[in-house]
Amino acid sequence: MTFRLDARLAADSAVVGDLPLCRLLLSRDSRYPWCILVPRQADLRELHQLSEAAGGMLFDEIRQVSHALEALFQPDKLNVAALGNLVPQPHVHVVARFRNDFAWPGPIWGQGEALPYEAAVLRLRVEDLQARLGL
Amino acid sequence: MTFRLDARLAADSAVVGDLPLCRLLLSRDSRYPWCILVPRQADLRELHQLSEAAGGMLFDEIRQVSHALEALFQPDKLNVAALGNLVPQPHVHVVARFRNDFAWPGPIWGQGEALPYEAAVLRLRVEDLQARLGL
Repeated sequence: MTFRLDARLAADSAVVGDLPLCRLLLSRDSRYPWCILVPRQADLRELHQLSEAAGGMLFDEIRQVSHALEALFQPDKLNVAALGNLVPQPHVHVVARFRNDFAWPGPIWGQGEALPYEAAVLRLRVEDLQARLGL
Repeated sequence: MTFRLDARLAADSAVVGDLPLCRLLLSRDSRYPWCILVPRQADLRELHQLSEAAGGMLFDEIRQVSHALEALFQPDKLNVAALGNLVPQPHVHVVARFRNDFAWPGPIWGQGEALPYEAAVLRLRVEDLQARLGL
């Protein structure tokens, strides 16, 4: 089996690029700087099934994306979460949060309607992340 | 500085025991089998500030707790999240989710009121986790 990105994840995000383990996505919801890491392993059901080596890579990629979001947006907090109640393909959200953002201090999932980026802004955000992460 | 558990985390949970990196807690909210891992590092602000070695330990402890919850409760999904918008001390939620649980398919945080365990049930849950994790 080859890796295929879940259709809902694909529809709700733009591709930033591939890190060694994960495909990095940017959510199309402009309310939050919101990245999503998806390990490119076809048969993965839960993240704790990753090998120890892959788990270390995942932690390292979460760290890289966290640093990139901090450098680009100076958030008040980062939220990191693997939920997957709606999308079965394992993925990790890394979200820059602000004390004045839409859902603060609650979690962002299932809160209101996504607010799409203007196309030019989305492209700029993706390029900023690519530059920070060497993609 | 020595490690001190955040007062709100302490009030909302029972201590299961100490793994090599983290103090393991069980939430007092009986609606979900809900563990919380708190790295015992006094000056930590975000989890991605952990060293590479400590990050590997954290991933391993998340995996151990995930396996314990799967063995004890056979959940439909595990949710793993580091949020910390309300409690600044870095901590990781590992929650066993069921398709018929209170908040499904939404996230559990900020949904309704916590439902306390009966004392004997809470003690049993803590002992089950201790036995599974060798604590």
